[in-house]
Amino acid sequence: MRVLILGGTGGIGQALARALRGQGELHLAGRRREALLALAAEVGGRAYPLELGDELEVQALLEEVGPLDLLIYAAGAVVRKPLRELPRSEWEEVFTANLTGAYLVLKHARFRPGARAGFLGAYPDYVAHPGFAAYAAVKAGLEALLKVAAKELRREGVHLVLFRLPAVATGLWTPLGGPPKGALSPEGAVRRILEALKAEPPPALVEV
Amino acid sequence: MRVLILGGTGGIGQALARALRGQGELHLAGRRREALLALAAEVGGRAYPLELGDELEVQALLEEVGPLDLLIYAAGAVVRKPLRELPRSEWEEVFTANLTGAYLVLKHARFRPGARAGFLGAYPDYVAHPGFAAYAAVKAGLEALLKVAAKELRREGVHLVLFRLPAVATGLWTPLGGPPKGALSPEGAVRRILEALKAEPPPALVEV
Repeated sequence: MRVLILGGTGGIGQALARALRGQGELHLAGRRREALLALAAEVGGRAYPLELGDELEVQALLEEVGPLDLLIYAAGAVVRKPLRELPRSEWEEVFTANLTGAYLVLKHARFRPGARAGFLGAYPDYVAHPGFAAYAAVKAGLEALLKVAAKELRREGVHLVLFRLPAVATGLWTPLGGPPKGALSPEGAVRRILEALKAEPPPALVEV
Repeated sequence: MRVLILGGTGGIGQALARALRGQGELHLAGRRREALLALAAEVGGRAYPLELGDELEVQALLEEVGPLDLLIYAAGAVVRKPLRELPRSEWEEVFTANLTGAYLVLKHARFRPGARAGFLGAYPDYVAHPGFAAYAAVKAGLEALLKVAAKELRREGVHLVLFRLPAVATGLWTPLGGPPKGALSPEGAVRRILEALKAEPPPALVEV
């Protein structure tokens, strides 16, 4: 089994890598070089430092790794600021990490028949709150992107799965003062994610 | 009544300008300078050539125009290409015209109490088809953006209205070989849009 985890150094990416240790050929891509190298050494995988907004980098990575059995897009970024105070640069950062990167990965990935590709979304009602305009927009956009992509890529034999996640206790929340009370553990989220990705056939939408 | 139409030279923008002729102070912003000047002369409005992706231009326009009674965001762009063949530049163009521009306008617009701001969306199921990944993603993103923006801007006394439009027979469809059969006329769409914007209170979501 050939596995690629995008956003490998995030809280969910790390927990995924550890859960998949020893289950095949493990490729880990992410932005934080040192953390990525340490994780790859720990789980016996290969590390690919990557800027998800750079199409040439994404394309080169996916060509080098080759056709995949399992891809998990675990990259993400969040910001909490009223629109009136939201800098363009932070709007763009949230869009690149959550949505433009997903488009670039879907554009260039190659899959083996029966492959699965999982993407991390959010409960629409959970994020439709003041301060989360950019985050709500990208996660809604991601769901729509996947609906179309699933139809386009069906003949390549890949199953796309969108996970609506509640808050998960990861570093994503650090700039917001830490995860909210009752946040799911990364390991708990990963258990649910991998279970659904292994189902035959996997569901298109999973509410975790 | 002070009115601003963004995307004033599109098919819907033009029909809006004509329908609102003589009903107050009419400000028209759009990308195509010549068409905009001609339309402004025809309806007795003021023309503002504008790149919606340029925050400084958007901010300067909204400061110059001043507090609004009615804003209609009628800008848009569409592309129909499989994700595998969709150039990054076209993805960005669709995002800027439909979504990033809407964020910048909401960030910088000022409103008079009781103002209305209308935005043009799409029926999610209508656009969830192969080739429309970028368009489906931005229109879903726009709905989520407005849900949050409505909560943030409520205390400013502005009502935000999202219109789910069917295909409308405008130049938006030109690069796609013309509008689909049964497309609504711009005048028909505009009648429904203005009717809803004048309702007391206006609905947050209108299916045209």
